[in-house]
Amino acid sequence: ADAEVMQQARARQAQLTKPAGSLGLLEDISVRLAGVFGTPQPHPRGVAVIVAAGDHGVTAEGVSAYPPEVTPAMVANFLAETPWGSGGAAVNAIARTVGARVYVADAGVNADLPAHPRLVAASIRRGTRNLRVEAALTPEETEAAVLAGAALARQAIHDGADLLVPGEMGIGNTTPASAISARMLGLDVAAVTGRGTGVDDVTLARKREVISDALKRQGSAAADPLGVLADLGGLEIAFMLGVMLEAAAQRRAIVLDGFVEGSAALIGVALAPALGDYLFAAGECAEIGHAAQLAHLGLTPMFRLGLRLGEGTGGVLAAPLLLSAAATLREMQTFAEASVPEGN
Amino acid sequence: ADAEVMQQARARQAQLTKPAGSLGLLEDISVRLAGVFGTPQPHPRGVAVIVAAGDHGVTAEGVSAYPPEVTPAMVANFLAETPWGSGGAAVNAIARTVGARVYVADAGVNADLPAHPRLVAASIRRGTRNLRVEAALTPEETEAAVLAGAALARQAIHDGADLLVPGEMGIGNTTPASAISARMLGLDVAAVTGRGTGVDDVTLARKREVISDALKRQGSAAADPLGVLADLGGLEIAFMLGVMLEAAAQRRAIVLDGFVEGSAALIGVALAPALGDYLFAAGECAEIGHAAQLAHLGLTPMFRLGLRLGEGTGGVLAAPLLLSAAATLREMQTFAEASVPEGN
Repeated sequence: ADAEVMQQARARQAQLTKPAGSLGLLEDISVRLAGVFGTPQPHPRGVAVIVAAGDHGVTAEGVSAYPPEVTPAMVANFLAETPWGSGGAAVNAIARTVGARVYVADAGVNADLPAHPRLVAASIRRGTRNLRVEAALTPEETEAAVLAGAALARQAIHDGADLLVPGEMGIGNTTPASAISARMLGLDVAAVTGRGTGVDDVTLARKREVISDALKRQGSAAADPLGVLADLGGLEIAFMLGVMLEAAAQRRAIVLDGFVEGSAALIGVALAPALGDYLFAAGECAEIGHAAQLAHLGLTPMFRLGLRLGEGTGGVLAAPLLLSAAATLREMQTFAEASVPEGN
Repeated sequence: ADAEVMQQARARQAQLTKPAGSLGLLEDISVRLAGVFGTPQPHPRGVAVIVAAGDHGVTAEGVSAYPPEVTPAMVANFLAETPWGSGGAAVNAIARTVGARVYVADAGVNADLPAHPRLVAASIRRGTRNLRVEAALTPEETEAAVLAGAALARQAIHDGADLLVPGEMGIGNTTPASAISARMLGLDVAAVTGRGTGVDDVTLARKREVISDALKRQGSAAADPLGVLADLGGLEIAFMLGVMLEAAAQRRAIVLDGFVEGSAALIGVALAPALGDYLFAAGECAEIGHAAQLAHLGLTPMFRLGLRLGEGTGGVLAAPLLLSAAATLREMQTFAEASVPEGN
């Protein structure tokens, strides 16, 4: 981000017709957006949510409340024709409301998905390996998923996206997200492992054991972030990392939804610390460990809705707040322009 | 609100393609919106913010960081032609971003405002009397301001508003808002009196003393809410009360911004408890006492941006979240419709 532009933006915020600081966190966000877009009066417009789907070998261990067949069924739901338009999932309904465009990618679903004009076929393999017993992905598979995500982000930006929301769907994917978070943050498994879609106590205990076993394998070290990603896996997590890296490289803002997105961001900032300048946190999600991710990323969440759905829903909900923050910096008059007396 | 419809909406939320409860507070909001609009698949569309401006005799006591001349100057700013459209204040910039319509009313500014095609001239008197020493308004003036607010809400609803955001501008108006809150909630002055636009410690102490004096006068009792409103005043507060009463009577949703709006809502639910069914809290604002207002109203704020600007800004920012909540209930497919397996 551009420090000089941010300084100009900060100075401009202080001259706008409102009590200093009265827009709270929106003022900080507006200044960060100025840095991202390289102008003290940023004008982001298009919003894109990229929903990457992938399956997880670790579901064989019984770590989720839902069967893995839900992943392909939800992909079909993202694409379904409904009376309201394309897509019958939460992310579709919310995206239609706020004017965001939805991209759906198969990053590695364990099923033969029928071809669909709106489905980006980018499957690297039919789900990951079981991370409890072996590396979930090879380095080559991991890189391919990252590149596929970057390619779709490039397309979305070409289509007009200024705000990119990485989203995900993958039954079992809070397990790799927790494993990645434990390793990258150096935290205990229990501190970053929650109920995901809503598992019971017995399943939660098993999930923690599975993750502990995965971390005890002769595996990866935090100093090798792509190695951690391959070891603990998640094709859609790797795909989202690619979305983030491309978005940052093209100076677009990235809105983080929940815990799984956060795990991709942890890999991202370890690879490229400057990525952090492009990240904005939507809300604090209900999944344990999300707060630790955000603290590490230095991000303050905007809302507290207790979301724990994924799909990028929180990021899409946050988009109007980000666009509004930019609008205050861009469109408000200064005290001088409006001839409003200043305070003491 | 319609209890049977809310029951249907709650049942429908449980069948939608997502883990139960994973949309958090949005699910409760969607069910309440179903009750407001009388259908389990509510479809609110238009958003209107009604910014009422008024002045306050109590500014003679030096309770604000800004001179009273700011009130008419900000009204001019709400109406100013800018390169971005009509209005150069924060509420204008945010409303343009989220597609809300802005109505501006003179409810009692202490100035001769030039006529403007977009200014609703509804001034009852040129500011209130000084509430420290006498009743701020007569009962007749109070009623006239309430009726004027109701009339403008009627217009906004006629123009298509389903979500109404009462907003305000009035230098000194956190003083009557604090006085009203102290009386209606039975709380100490210190618990509901903050820095408003940002007064220093000396001014804050004086502001509290002024409010204490006002409450010690032979004045109003909480059992007579319109009496409290007249006694402690605020023409724009009375105007916003009228907006709320009319919106509720026409079964529209009301989005509450900050502390001054909250004081009008306290009068409102004391007059007509059913009004509470139509109220939705945007965020928790930084002004002390707002949390106590929301607790009394039984409302959970959606975001935590630390706003303390007023003008209805927070309510407008919250509008996309409310519209999105309704959209999930309306547009998402059920597990059965989407052939998605349910969890255990």
